[in-house]
Amino acid sequence: MSPESVWDAARRARIGLAEAILCEGKTPGQIAAICAVATKDDRHPLLLTRLESTVFAALPPEVRCEADYDALSRTALLGRMPVPGEAARIAVVTAGTSDVGVAREAVRTLAAYGETATEWADIGVAGLWRLLERLEELKRFAVVIVVAGMDGALFSVIGGLLPGAIIAVPTSTGYGMSAKGETALHAALASCAPGILVTNIDNGYGAACAALRILRAARQADL
Amino acid sequence: MSPESVWDAARRARIGLAEAILCEGKTPGQIAAICAVATKDDRHPLLLTRLESTVFAALPPEVRCEADYDALSRTALLGRMPVPGEAARIAVVTAGTSDVGVAREAVRTLAAYGETATEWADIGVAGLWRLLERLEELKRFAVVIVVAGMDGALFSVIGGLLPGAIIAVPTSTGYGMSAKGETALHAALASCAPGILVTNIDNGYGAACAALRILRAARQADL
Amino acid sequence: MSPESVWDAARRARIGLAEAILCEGKTPGQIAAICAVATKDDRHPLLLTRLESTVFAALPPEVRCEADYDALSRTALLGRMPVPGEAARIAVVTAGTSDVGVAREAVRTLAAYGETATEWADIGVAGLWRLLERLEELKRFAVVIVVAGMDGALFSVIGGLLPGAIIAVPTSTGYGMSAKGETALHAALASCAPGILVTNIDNGYGAACAALRILRAARQADL
Amino acid sequence: MSPESVWDAARRARIGLAEAILCEGKTPGQIAAICAVATKDDRHPLLLTRLESTVFAALPPEVRCEADYDALSRTALLGRMPVPGEAARIAVVTAGTSDVGVAREAVRTLAAYGETATEWADIGVAGLWRLLERLEELKRFAVVIVVAGMDGALFSVIGGLLPGAIIAVPTSTGYGMSAKGETALHAALASCAPGILVTNIDNGYGAACAALRILRAARQADL
Amino acid sequence: MSPESVWDAARRARIGLAEAILCEGKTPGQIAAICAVATKDDRHPLLLTRLESTVFAALPPEVRCEADYDALSRTALLGRMPVPGEAARIAVVTAGTSDVGVAREAVRTLAAYGETATEWADIGVAGLWRLLERLEELKRFAVVIVVAGMDGALFSVIGGLLPGAIIAVPTSTGYGMSAKGETALHAALASCAPGILVTNIDNGYGAACAALRILRAARQADL
Amino acid sequence: MSPESVWDAARRARIGLAEAILCEGKTPGQIAAICAVATKDDRHPLLLTRLESTVFAALPPEVRCEADYDALSRTALLGRMPVPGEAARIAVVTAGTSDVGVAREAVRTLAAYGETATEWADIGVAGLWRLLERLEELKRFAVVIVVAGMDGALFSVIGGLLPGAIIAVPTSTGYGMSAKGETALHAALASCAPGILVTNIDNGYGAACAALRILRAARQADL
Amino acid sequence: MSPESVWDAARRARIGLAEAILCEGKTPGQIAAICAVATKDDRHPLLLTRLESTVFAALPPEVRCEADYDALSRTALLGRMPVPGEAARIAVVTAGTSDVGVAREAVRTLAAYGETATEWADIGVAGLWRLLERLEELKRFAVVIVVAGMDGALFSVIGGLLPGAIIAVPTSTGYGMSAKGETALHAALASCAPGILVTNIDNGYGAACAALRILRAARQADL
Amino acid sequence: MSPESVWDAARRARIGLAEAILCEGKTPGQIAAICAVATKDDRHPLLLTRLESTVFAALPPEVRCEADYDALSRTALLGRMPVPGEAARIAVVTAGTSDVGVAREAVRTLAAYGETATEWADIGVAGLWRLLERLEELKRFAVVIVVAGMDGALFSVIGGLLPGAIIAVPTSTGYGMSAKGETALHAALASCAPGILVTNIDNGYGAACAALRILRAARQADL
Repeated sequence: MSPESVWDAARRARIGLAEAILCEGKTPGQIAAICAVATKDDRHPLLLTRLESTVFAALPPEVRCEADYDALSRTALLGRMPVPGEAARIAVVTAGTSDVGVAREAVRTLAAYGETATEWADIGVAGLWRLLERLEELKRFAVVIVVAGMDGALFSVIGGLLPGAIIAVPTSTGYGMSAKGETALHAALASCAPGILVTNIDNGYGAACAALRILRAARQADL
Repeated sequence: MSPESVWDAARRARIGLAEAILCEGKTPGQIAAICAVATKDDRHPLLLTRLESTVFAALPPEVRCEADYDALSRTALLGRMPVPGEAARIAVVTAGTSDVGVAREAVRTLAAYGETATEWADIGVAGLWRLLERLEELKRFAVVIVVAGMDGALFSVIGGLLPGAIIAVPTSTGYGMSAKGETALHAALASCAPGILVTNIDNGYGAACAALRILRAARQADL
Repeated sequence: MSPESVWDAARRARIGLAEAILCEGKTPGQIAAICAVATKDDRHPLLLTRLESTVFAALPPEVRCEADYDALSRTALLGRMPVPGEAARIAVVTAGTSDVGVAREAVRTLAAYGETATEWADIGVAGLWRLLERLEELKRFAVVIVVAGMDGALFSVIGGLLPGAIIAVPTSTGYGMSAKGETALHAALASCAPGILVTNIDNGYGAACAALRILRAARQADL
Repeated sequence: MSPESVWDAARRARIGLAEAILCEGKTPGQIAAICAVATKDDRHPLLLTRLESTVFAALPPEVRCEADYDALSRTALLGRMPVPGEAARIAVVTAGTSDVGVAREAVRTLAAYGETATEWADIGVAGLWRLLERLEELKRFAVVIVVAGMDGALFSVIGGLLPGAIIAVPTSTGYGMSAKGETALHAALASCAPGILVTNIDNGYGAACAALRILRAARQADL
Repeated sequence: MSPESVWDAARRARIGLAEAILCEGKTPGQIAAICAVATKDDRHPLLLTRLESTVFAALPPEVRCEADYDALSRTALLGRMPVPGEAARIAVVTAGTSDVGVAREAVRTLAAYGETATEWADIGVAGLWRLLERLEELKRFAVVIVVAGMDGALFSVIGGLLPGAIIAVPTSTGYGMSAKGETALHAALASCAPGILVTNIDNGYGAACAALRILRAARQADL
Repeated sequence: MSPESVWDAARRARIGLAEAILCEGKTPGQIAAICAVATKDDRHPLLLTRLESTVFAALPPEVRCEADYDALSRTALLGRMPVPGEAARIAVVTAGTSDVGVAREAVRTLAAYGETATEWADIGVAGLWRLLERLEELKRFAVVIVVAGMDGALFSVIGGLLPGAIIAVPTSTGYGMSAKGETALHAALASCAPGILVTNIDNGYGAACAALRILRAARQADL
Repeated sequence: MSPESVWDAARRARIGLAEAILCEGKTPGQIAAICAVATKDDRHPLLLTRLESTVFAALPPEVRCEADYDALSRTALLGRMPVPGEAARIAVVTAGTSDVGVAREAVRTLAAYGETATEWADIGVAGLWRLLERLEELKRFAVVIVVAGMDGALFSVIGGLLPGAIIAVPTSTGYGMSAKGETALHAALASCAPGILVTNIDNGYGAACAALRILRAARQADL
Repeated sequence: MSPESVWDAARRARIGLAEAILCEGKTPGQIAAICAVATKDDRHPLLLTRLESTVFAALPPEVRCEADYDALSRTALLGRMPVPGEAARIAVVTAGTSDVGVAREAVRTLAAYGETATEWADIGVAGLWRLLERLEELKRFAVVIVVAGMDGALFSVIGGLLPGAIIAVPTSTGYGMSAKGETALHAALASCAPGILVTNIDNGYGAACAALRILRAARQADL
C-alpha cells in the first residue's frame, strides 16, 4: 500500500465492520494502492463508496475487472460476497425516486455482510396511502432505514407508526431551502416522534453499518 | 400621535387590512401614543400583537381598561368587535399544545374581521390518527392554517391530504435543531406536497391576514 | 413503471393537483420510466419540472416527441392540454428579466390546469413607476404571484398596495449577499406588509399549485 | 384534559413508547391539564422532560406531590415505576461533568420502562486513559449512549473501539464555537467511525427511546 | 485613565472624528476611567453609545451629572456642544416606530459635530404614500440615512427615487426570519437600486460618522 | 425590447444613474434584446456587468462590435463615452492582485460618467508599508473605494487613517473561512474604525454608483 | 470526588498542563466536589475558568476562602502559586478595553505556571500609532497573544509586522455583525498575514496553554 | 511586475517569512508577472500555492521549466532550495489518505525554509492503534501539525496525549455535515484538550509558516 495509507485490517475483528474506501477526495492512484493492500489477505468483500463512474473508469484494469460496480449508488464491491441471509430483517424505504441511489448504497453495504434487505421506493407522505398500505408488512422488520430528502416528513410519520429501530438517512434531494439535505437532517433530529436515530446526509453506508451494529446488539443483549 | 409614528389609516380601504401594532421593540409610551391616534376616528377594532403581559401592565389605564387582553397569544383588541360570521370557513390546527399561543393569535386576528375560525389543537403526526379522524371535516374548510414547530411534518401530511388553501405557520417550539422554528420553516418551504404557502415563524397574525386575502380573492375572482 | 417509483395517480382526485415529475436528481432512465406509467391511463397533461435541456435531450424519442419543452422555464408538458380559461384571474409579475424563467414555470403549470395567467416582467422597485402605472390593472386579479430575487423588495411594496392574495416566489437571481435567493426569501417572510405568503426559492410550480388551491378555496367557501 | 391537547394514549400499544410531556414552551396550567388526563387510566409512569424547577414549583400540589422530580435532569416521573431489570444492557457515558444532566434524562427515561442503565461520567478524550481502562467492560453492553459536547471527539473514539450499537447525544456544553451543541452534533454526523447514530442536541430522552427500540428490534429479529 | 485603555486623542485631528465610547461590554468602572481622561483636555463633546440606563445609573456622579443622557438611543453626551448648523443637510428617516432609537443615535452623533438633521419616522413601504408625499422634500438633502428592520424594503425604494447619498442602517427590529437585523442588512446589500451604502446592524453612530465623512468629501473634492 | 424587460429610461434623470445590465442569470438573447432598446434613444454609454467572456462571445455581432469589453472586470461599455474629468477625485485601492477585477469594474463604471479614478493595487496590510507610503497622497481624495477579500483588515486600517468618505467592497477572494467574501464583508461592517460604508460582495459597480452619489451630495449640500 | 467526575491527575505529567475546571454549565455542588479531589494531593495551583461571581458566591466557604478570585476574567486560583519567572517571554495585547477580561484570563493562566506576561491593552488599528509606537518592544517577545473582537483587524496587522509566534484570540466584543466573535474568528483564520494561529472565541485560557506548549517546544527542539 | 501587484520583498527580513503567491483567483498572466519580479533579485525559493495543474500548464515556459510542481499539493517551487536540516523537528500527520495533499503543502513549505518534516499519513481515530503505536515517537517532535477533516477528532486525541506545540489544520475532506471542513475546524476550536492552535481550512501553507514562527520563538525566548 502507498505510504499515504495505513489499512485498519483489525477493524473487522474489533468492531465487526471492515474498513471501506471513501473514494471522493482520493485520486485513482490512491484508491488503487489501497485496494491492493486491502484485498491481499482478506477473503471478505471490500466496499468502495462515493466512486464516480469517471473515477472508476480511471482505475487500473486489475481493480476494475474484479469489481461489481453500480453507478446509481456509486459503489463497487471487490472479493467474494457472503451467502445472503434468507430472511430480510432490515427494510430500506425511500420517500422518492431520487433517493434510491442512497438507499442502494445501504442495501449493497448490507449485502457485503450477508444481510438481505427489503427495498421499497417512493412512499413519501405527499401520497400517504403508499406508506399506509405497506404498514403491516413494515412492522415485521427489526430495523427500518428511511431515506428521504426535502422536508424529511417521512421520518416522523414512520416514527409514529412503527415500533422497530428507525434509522433516518437525510438526502441532498431537492432545491432551494431543501438546502442540500440540511432541512431533512434537521427535521429528523427535531422529530416529534420519539427514538428516531439519524446519520449524515446521503450516508447509506453509515446507516447499513448502524443496522448491523443493532442486529449484533440484539445478540449481545441475550434476549 | 407621537411624531415617531405615522398611522396608515388608509390601509383598510386600500388593501382591506387595517394596520396593527407590533408591540415588541416599542416602549409602553410609544404603544400608548399610537393607540391614541389609531382609535380616535376608527370604529374598527385595533389589534396589538406580541404584547408581553409586563408591557401590557405598563400601559396607561385608559388603554388597559379598553383592551381585551389574552396572555397566551400576547394580543390585545381595542374597540368594538364586528359581529362574528356564522359559518367557519377557516380552520386553525396545531401540531402540539405548545403551538396554541400562535394559533390563538390567528384566531383573534380573524375575529377582528368577523371571521369565525374552528380551532383544533395537538394533532401532530406522532399520533397520526388524531389527524386522520378529523380529515373529512377538515376537507370542508376553504382555508386551513397549520401551526407546527419542531420537524414541521404536519405541513406536508396535510398538504398531501387536503385540497383547500393551506397556510403553514412554523413555530419556535422545540429545542436544539428545532432551531427556534427554522427547521419547521424550511420543512414547509421544501415540502414534498404541492402548493403549501408559508409565513414567518410564529406569525399567526400574518397567516390570518393571508386567509382574509384569500377569502377576498374568491370574491374578486367572480367564481 | 420502474420499481423505484410508485405513481400517486389518486392525487388529482384527492387534492385537485396531479403529481408532477421533479427531474433534477433523477436519471433520464428514471424519468422515462415514470412518464411511461403516468401517461398510460391519464388523459390529463403531465408536467416535468427542472428538466435541463441536456437531460431532456437524453430522454427516449417517444417521450421527447410528445413533449412541449420550454428551455427558459426548464419545463415539459406531455398529453392533451385543457382548454384555456377565458379571463385571467391570476397575474404573474417579475422584478427583473432574470426572474422570467421561474415565472414561466408558474404560467405553464397554470396552463396545465386551464388557467390563463397574465404575465408582466421587469417591474422591480428600482424603477417604481413601472409598478405604479400597472397598479389599477393589478388590483383586478384574485391572485398575484410575485417573482423576485436579490432584495425581494417588490414583495412588500405590492403587499402594501394590493388587496388580493399575494404569493411571493423568491428567486436565486443575484450574487454575493443575494445568497442564492435566501435574502429575497427572508425579506418575503419578514415583510412589513401583512398577509404575504411565501414558497420555496425558484418554486414557480409550487406558486401555481397554491394559486389553484386558492381559487378552489373561493369556490369551497361558497361566497 | 384541556381542549388544547389530545392525549395519544394508544402510542404505547402502537410503538412501545408512551407519550411524554415536553414541558418547555408550555404553561403550568397546560402541563397540569395534560397530567390529569394522561394519568387517569394509565398504570404506567408518565415522564415530564425539560421541566425547570420554577415551572415544577408552579404546578398544582396534586401533581407535585405525586412526582419524583430531579433537578439535574429537569425530569419528573408520575405513577408507579416498573420493577427494574436485573442486568444492565445499556451503558450511558459522558465526556464531562457538565453532560451529566442529559445523561440522567436518558437513565430516568430507561428506568420508566424497567431498563437499568450503567452510568459512567467524565471519560472524555482529553484524558484518554479514562475510557481505555473501561473498554473491556463497555464492550459487554448491547447499546452505549455517548453524551458529549464541545468537539464531540468521544463519539468517534468509541465508535472505533466498540462493536455494539452506539447512540451519540451531542450536548450544548461549551462556549464560542461549541455553538450550543452544533459542533458536537456535526462531529457525530461526520464521524470517521462507521455506524454511529445521532439524536438531537441534549436529547437524552430520545436516546433512551431509541435504545428501547433497539432492544425490541433484537427480539423482533428473532435472533 | 485606567491602564486598560489608551485614548486616541489624535483621532479628531487625523480623520475628523473623535473617539467615542462603546459602553456595551465595559464595566461602569472602565467607562468612568475613560471619561476621566477623554474629557480632561478636550473641549469637544464626548459621546457614549449603547449605554444601558442601568449602567448609566452605576456611573459615578461626576460623570452622570455632566451627561446629557437619552434612554431611547442609549447615548450620553459630555462636554460643551457645538453651535448647531442652520440648514439641515442630512435627513434621517425610519421605516417604523421601533427604529427610532437607532435613528436618534445618528441624530445625536451628528449634533455632537454641529450638524442639524431632519428626522422623519415611520414611513415604511407598507404605507407607501407616507414616503411618496415627502419625496420632493427628501430630494433636497445631500445625505439620507435610512433606518429600517424586518424586510429592509425601504432601502431599495428610496434608492430608486432619490439622487443623493444613501446610507442604509439595518435594525434588529422584527422577529423570526427578521433574524435580528440580518435580513434587512442582506436586503440593503443585495438591493436592486444602485449605489446604496450600508452600515452594521443598529449602527446609527456609524451612519452619522459616514455622513460627516461624506460632507467633508464634498469640501475636499473642491466642487 | 423583449416583453420580458421594461427599460427604466427615466432613471438617469431621476437619480443621476442610468440603468445597467447585470448579465449573470440572463440568456444572450435577453441581453441583446435589452441592449437594442437601451441604446436606441440614448447618447449615454450603456454598461453591462458580470458578463462572462463566453456569454459575450454569444452576443449578436451588432452588440459585440460596438462594445468595449474587458475580460478582467467582466464589463462591456456601449455607446459614446463622456470626456474624462481632469482631476481624479476618487481613488480605488485593492488589498491584493486577485481583487483587481472588482476594482476595475468600479473604475470603468466611473469612466462611464466621466469620472477619472486613480487605481492602486496590492497594498494589503500584510505589508503595511505599501499603504503607509501612499498615505499622504490618499488623503487628498474625496472618496476612497477599498477593495479587499479574505480578512478585510485593510478596511479598518484605512478607516483609522483617512478622513474622506470610505467605501468598502468586500471580495470573494480567498478560500476556506474567507467564505466567499462573507468574512471581509462582516469585518467591514464590524469595523473598529468609524464611518466605513459597505457594498455587496464583489460589487465594484455599486461602489462606483455610491461614489457618484457622494460627489453629487457635495454639490447638493452647497458647501 | 463526586461520581460524576474523574479527575485527570496524570495530565500535568503527560502533557505539561494540568486539568482546569470550566465552571460554566456546572452546578456549585459539582464544582466544589471536583475542587475537593483536585486539590487533595496536588501542590500545584488549580485554575477555575468562566466562573461567574454569582456562582463563586454559591461555593462552600472552604473553597471560597482559599481562592484568589478575579471578577474581570471570571477566574479563580486555588493552591500555592509558583514563583513568577523574571523575564516576560510572552506579551498579551488587546484591541480594546472590552477585551481585557479575556486577556486577563490568559495572564492568570500563565501565572499559574510561573510565566510572567506583559500586558498591553487598547492598541487597536483604529488608532494605529498605539501599536506602531510599541512595535520594537513587541518584537522582543517569543510569543504574542493578540486579543481582539469586532473586525479582528489587529491580528493581520500584527502578523505582518512581528516575527514571533502569534496566537489570535477572537472575542465576543461588539454587536450586530461582530456576530459574538465569529467575525473576528473568521478574520483571524482568513488572515492575509502568514502563520497566525487561532483559538476558540474568548479562550484566553487556551491561548495561554498554547503559549506554554510553544515555550516547551522550543526546549524540545534543542535549538 | 504588473502594476496590479506590489511585491513585499521586505517581508522575509521583517518577519522571517517570504511572500508566497496564492494562485487561486489569479490569471496565468498575473501569476507570471509576479514571478518575474519576485525571482529577479531573490536567491530564495519562491512558493506558489493552490496552483491547479491547468493553470500551471498555462504559465509561460520560462516559469514552468524553472518550477518544481507537485500536483497533489498543488504547489510549485521556483529558485534554489536551501540545504535541508538534518533532524526533523516537525511532524506532519494526517487522519486519512484524502488529507495528504494539504499535508504535502505544509511539508513543501517547510522544505523551502530548510526544515525537514516527518510525515505520517492515515492515523485517524477510527483505528486508534495507528496513532497509539506511534505515540512515543511523536512525543519527540517540537511541533506536530495535525491534518484532519470530517469530525476532526484526531486533534483532540493528540492534544490530550502530546506535550508539544500542536497545530490543527482542518481539511475539506468528507461530505454532508463535514461541511467542507467547517466541522473539523469547529471541533479543533472547541477541543476539550488544552492549547490546540488552529489554521484556516486546507491551509497547510499557513501551518508551516506558524511552525517556523514557533521554532524561531524558541530561539527568541533564549531558553
